[in-house]
Amino acid sequence: MRNAQFSEPDPKTLDAIKRVLGPAGWKAPQDASRYFEDPRGRFRGQASLIALPASTAQVAEIVRLCAANSIGIVPYSGGTGVVAGQLAIDSDNAIVVSLERMNKVRHFSVDDSVIVVEAGCILENVHTAAQDHDMMFPLNMASKGSCCIGGNLATNAGGIQVLRYGNARDLCLGIEAVLPDGTVLDELSPLHKNNTGYDLRHLLIGSEGTLGIITAATLKLKPQYPDTSTAFLAIQSPAKGLAVFQEMKRHLGDTISAVELMRGLGLTLVASKFPGLRPPFAQTPDWAILLEASGALGLGDRMQEALGACFDKDLLTDAVVAQSQSQRDSLWALRENTPAANRMAGAFCNSDTSVPLSRIDDFVKDTLQAIFDIHPDVQINSYGHLGDGNIHHNVLPPNGVSKADFLSANPGIIDAVRLAINDVTQKHNGSISAEHGIGRLKTDDLETYASAARYDTLKRIKAALDPKSIMNPGALIR
Amino acid sequence: MRNAQFSEPDPKTLDAIKRVLGPAGWKAPQDASRYFEDPRGRFRGQASLIALPASTAQVAEIVRLCAANSIGIVPYSGGTGVVAGQLAIDSDNAIVVSLERMNKVRHFSVDDSVIVVEAGCILENVHTAAQDHDMMFPLNMASKGSCCIGGNLATNAGGIQVLRYGNARDLCLGIEAVLPDGTVLDELSPLHKNNTGYDLRHLLIGSEGTLGIITAATLKLKPQYPDTSTAFLAIQSPAKGLAVFQEMKRHLGDTISAVELMRGLGLTLVASKFPGLRPPFAQTPDWAILLEASGALGLGDRMQEALGACFDKDLLTDAVVAQSQSQRDSLWALRENTPAANRMAGAFCNSDTSVPLSRIDDFVKDTLQAIFDIHPDVQINSYGHLGDGNIHHNVLPPNGVSKADFLSANPGIIDAVRLAINDVTQKHNGSISAEHGIGRLKTDDLETYASAARYDTLKRIKAALDPKSIMNPGALIR
Repeated sequence: MRNAQFSEPDPKTLDAIKRVLGPAGWKAPQDASRYFEDPRGRFRGQASLIALPASTAQVAEIVRLCAANSIGIVPYSGGTGVVAGQLAIDSDNAIVVSLERMNKVRHFSVDDSVIVVEAGCILENVHTAAQDHDMMFPLNMASKGSCCIGGNLATNAGGIQVLRYGNARDLCLGIEAVLPDGTVLDELSPLHKNNTGYDLRHLLIGSEGTLGIITAATLKLKPQYPDTSTAFLAIQSPAKGLAVFQEMKRHLGDTISAVELMRGLGLTLVASKFPGLRPPFAQTPDWAILLEASGALGLGDRMQEALGACFDKDLLTDAVVAQSQSQRDSLWALRENTPAANRMAGAFCNSDTSVPLSRIDDFVKDTLQAIFDIHPDVQINSYGHLGDGNIHHNVLPPNGVSKADFLSANPGIIDAVRLAINDVTQKHNGSISAEHGIGRLKTDDLETYASAARYDTLKRIKAALDPKSIMNPGALIR
Repeated sequence: MRNAQFSEPDPKTLDAIKRVLGPAGWKAPQDASRYFEDPRGRFRGQASLIALPASTAQVAEIVRLCAANSIGIVPYSGGTGVVAGQLAIDSDNAIVVSLERMNKVRHFSVDDSVIVVEAGCILENVHTAAQDHDMMFPLNMASKGSCCIGGNLATNAGGIQVLRYGNARDLCLGIEAVLPDGTVLDELSPLHKNNTGYDLRHLLIGSEGTLGIITAATLKLKPQYPDTSTAFLAIQSPAKGLAVFQEMKRHLGDTISAVELMRGLGLTLVASKFPGLRPPFAQTPDWAILLEASGALGLGDRMQEALGACFDKDLLTDAVVAQSQSQRDSLWALRENTPAANRMAGAFCNSDTSVPLSRIDDFVKDTLQAIFDIHPDVQINSYGHLGDGNIHHNVLPPNGVSKADFLSANPGIIDAVRLAINDVTQKHNGSISAEHGIGRLKTDDLETYASAARYDTLKRIKAALDPKSIMNPGALIR
């Protein structure tokens, strides 16, 4: 039990918390198993209470009660995190605080190009609210229908448009948060420049609920563009993909919003698991890129010009440009259903690392080699955000072998593969967690791979801001 | 004396520091008065030694010696800061650490679109290095010929292209820094995604040397654009300026890189102080905007179209579009010489506040009123970065009255004006330091205007990372 510092919460304190929340504001753990589910089915959370506050004031009051009585708090957002940041897996002494009832749009300003939303607002609802005003919110990922803004910010979520618009932190102008002592930090004002001391917004974003609970945020909106062009490109290697990206940049500048890499093996896999989907090439390539740009009218012509230049330089073996929204959707469906296809095929390892762009080709070669050295017959489906240097390696059992059989015949292979990928990542000056965070899954890895200077600084900050260690105990830093 | 915790440094420790640096690596204070000069002539720095380290290892060794012997360190970059962040004004017990000898470009990568430079590299030299590779580094400000990257990052500098490219922090992918205990944090790898704990880069950027010394940085480069269009626009009010900006965005999208506001009074002032410069309008307008966009070829046509739409909506009273680079330079010279003209005219107050864009018009009205309430005859030259909500009010003596005479006849007016502007800024949910930072000039103001939650958190972080308070003592937080 890692949260040994917390004993079972005093029933009187739990009653006080329930009184703050009112009858509709909490659930008993036995009535709320969905808060304990891991999207990848590896963990099971626990808690002594599910708190469902309806306001920032209620969150603050609960945190004060927990601080005074040393009760751990696990903040819960959309529940889509894949590193168990939202799951207390070692003890049922903590309470879960889910902000699902705090899901309102507080304010919309066209002049400021911002929307102010509560943390429980579902990402897709932010997209819709922006579209209603002819604007758009660029943060986008497969889980958009269930993930919430609070979790997006707490984990500094990435997704498929980071290349152009940045990570979640880059799309947030202000936050409101309840700090570990129950005080409210209200910094929602949409300021583009504010140099009044350390940037607390950037400190809380990405802190995975270990320094406070983000309760609301001011999000940057972007103009909608009149034209979008989407191309699916067959290439021979990630190195060629990078060269295509560089050439495309010369023609399309920063209108490029996505450069997603897929492996031929992955295309075949998605098509086999989703019979409605078909790769657009006559012959399955070794690798493929999904590239999208949006901007002023006439983008289609510039895309054709750019592709012509890529063919002239022998960077592409085939290319398809979507001629309609439905063709665009079909191309994206190949990419977006990749995680599901991996799961269906028994993936037992899903990495989330990033390296400098200049290292990607060597990184992919080296990781594939390292994994095959562990077991020569596994299948590896590598895909991800080439433009961000963020590749996900999914490792599957050999063809025809079930996950259960393979894992029982190869004990320890999950850890061996994970560590091999981490070692290669470190060799190439990369990050062992590009976009998913540390949660409870990677706390050991963080301690192993972070520099002593980084890890010591993280611990000092945690101890200074959360001296009782009540905020998401066991996550990020133990 | 604010740094009372530090007594005079032990000569033996100073000798040890000198030995680390070698004979060319230090100066005695009496031989180095330039390190004590304030660009606005209000303060005078002091120190017991000027250290000029030649490497990160030397910086680390000096910091370790200072930490062990409780000697304060004032990091010094280009010396262009206007809030005395680089000047120990209360005591000569600290040592100045200037990184001017660490001015090399360590690495340039076209594939990664980055340049890795040491902290003492002058901003303009980074511009040149980028141009040599057909790229550009967007951070830009009037002091570019003398300010250095280390100071740019330590203060999270702003400047004239924040609108499109962000502040200094948004243009930095990685840093190397020496922490207050002398350990080196090496996080220079150009990663676009890295969620391995709290964002230490964003914490150190903008910390004004109070949490460590940034010794090197990995900076993001952008493509050069083939076309630039620059317009000087006569408008009736800041509100009209905001409406122009919104209309322009509909036509030019995020190709707009600068929207600078000037007052008619300011145009006349610049022309009177710089006889070579002339506002391009037949009649001096109440207000004017300098707007610039860059992007794909054909931008000039889109600019004309956008201006037509602005005239149709009655947002503009006059407009001039630069037809050549020399015309562009002349328009920018009006804006860039504004600070110098203010100084020459005896400006006794230079504010640096930001508010939400939607509040700018009321903010300007309210601040002008508040200043005239203090003294009805002063002249107010308001200018700045309209697109960022960052207006600088410069307050000048009445026409024909010298600064010295005016200030002796109106004791206390400097503080009265500063506080009046701060109060109006706070009323409009703004920041009392938009881009210049806190330094030693605004420590009282920070304590007054920051929320208790913010100020308490700043103090906790400072105490956790710099428990002996040796890093830039007296700056930011006392």
